[in-house]
Amino acid sequence: MENEIISWIYEAAEKIKIGLGDALKVDQKNGRTDLVTNVDKEIQDFIVEKINTFDSNAKILGEENGLDQTPIDDGRVFVIDPIDGTLNFVMQQENFCIMIAVYEEGVGQLGFIYDVMRDDLFWGGPKVGKVYHNKKELSAPENKGLSEGLIGMNAALYRKNFYHAQEIGKASMGIRVLGCAGLDFIAILKGTQIGYISSLSPWDYAAGGIMMEQLGMTLCGANQAPLRFYGREYFIGATQAAMADIQAFDEEKN
Amino acid sequence: MENEIISWIYEAAEKIKIGLGDALKVDQKNGRTDLVTNVDKEIQDFIVEKINTFDSNAKILGEENGLDQTPIDDGRVFVIDPIDGTLNFVMQQENFCIMIAVYEEGVGQLGFIYDVMRDDLFWGGPKVGKVYHNKKELSAPENKGLSEGLIGMNAALYRKNFYHAQEIGKASMGIRVLGCAGLDFIAILKGTQIGYISSLSPWDYAAGGIMMEQLGMTLCGANQAPLRFYGREYFIGATQAAMADIQAFDEEKN
Repeated sequence: MENEIISWIYEAAEKIKIGLGDALKVDQKNGRTDLVTNVDKEIQDFIVEKINTFDSNAKILGEENGLDQTPIDDGRVFVIDPIDGTLNFVMQQENFCIMIAVYEEGVGQLGFIYDVMRDDLFWGGPKVGKVYHNKKELSAPENKGLSEGLIGMNAALYRKNFYHAQEIGKASMGIRVLGCAGLDFIAILKGTQIGYISSLSPWDYAAGGIMMEQLGMTLCGANQAPLRFYGREYFIGATQAAMADIQAFDEEKN
Repeated sequence: MENEIISWIYEAAEKIKIGLGDALKVDQKNGRTDLVTNVDKEIQDFIVEKINTFDSNAKILGEENGLDQTPIDDGRVFVIDPIDGTLNFVMQQENFCIMIAVYEEGVGQLGFIYDVMRDDLFWGGPKVGKVYHNKKELSAPENKGLSEGLIGMNAALYRKNFYHAQEIGKASMGIRVLGCAGLDFIAILKGTQIGYISSLSPWDYAAGGIMMEQLGMTLCGANQAPLRFYGREYFIGATQAAMADIQAFDEEKN
């Protein structure tokens, strides 16, 4: 299955790169800075068609085209974000990813994050027992605490100091705001960030979460509860040591 | 002169890449997250030696090794940041730049920003009448307003809402926090950000500022005053339209 998915991703990336030369049709979703383009929709349709041909029984949970309510825990579910970081895609024509995850009976089996313009693929999970950066096996990042590393942060959470975001940022070595969940997950998998705090939908965290857990790192939602895989929710992904440091802010200060 | 400077930069980058395999000696400057390494100091010494051989009358304003007080306006002054984004260099081994600028009698003549790990050089200024991305001439980015683009931001300014940073961020399409001034200037020169707001020293903004002005963009310090080229100061660099939008916040709200 993984070889098929990788081939869909590379084919989708070629379509995106060709589309970069054309005028984008950009629409707003929930406000002025939440955008969707014709390319997001076309790429999701392309991947959906590939999935339907590969496994007609599979279900699909995806950001666009009304597929955003599919439950994660029934049968085989493909979770798709055709363009993660749409605002970067529109404004920068770089710093965006294609993300696909595969769940079986509610268990994450495979995740794929492809940084299109840097031609950089991260993929793996329990089904293959490993995580790869392109063709090279990734080793688990060092289990650094919050004070030892950089942390990815959603700008609005940070500005509003939601769930102690500013104190967490100050306790880290520094925050980074990249505008693309896939790039934050890539940084965590490479060991160049110790975590990521944001407000995310399932297609934003499914692929990255599977690979983080495969490498011994950990995830949670609001109030230290498991992620719901339904709608947008508070998200923390971090090394085990950094997660303990972050969760201690809840206990000390609530 | 420009060919010599480019050759120093490439040679310095090779030394940095070789140094990445060795254990870094990391020291704190002004606090836990303001770092300097043996590589910063060695690379500055390497560039200083090249400058002294090239022009023994030139003066040097540089981040490390006690060269940080040189006035900008007397004779030919080379402004050096051997590793811009030292925290990224230490934590990520990527997302850092070498920056060099040349001032003559207080007038910026040439700027050079080299993203070492991506092998991406931006250089130019009045002396050559152009700005280049590697060997290709860059055209001036579109004169977009604040509401039309992404803006680079220093995390502490944003957190403290210094000079309306949060309102400015909300009026933009979104903020990005990259932890490396050189990468913000590169994004502006490419047209993928409309501006950058931070707290910077002369070696952080000299090279990028010269290239921005060459492409018709604009810079200022606190209270819309010219930059002082002395010590750390509030910095705005933006397209002309975005600068007008940003400065309007001062006038409306102070």
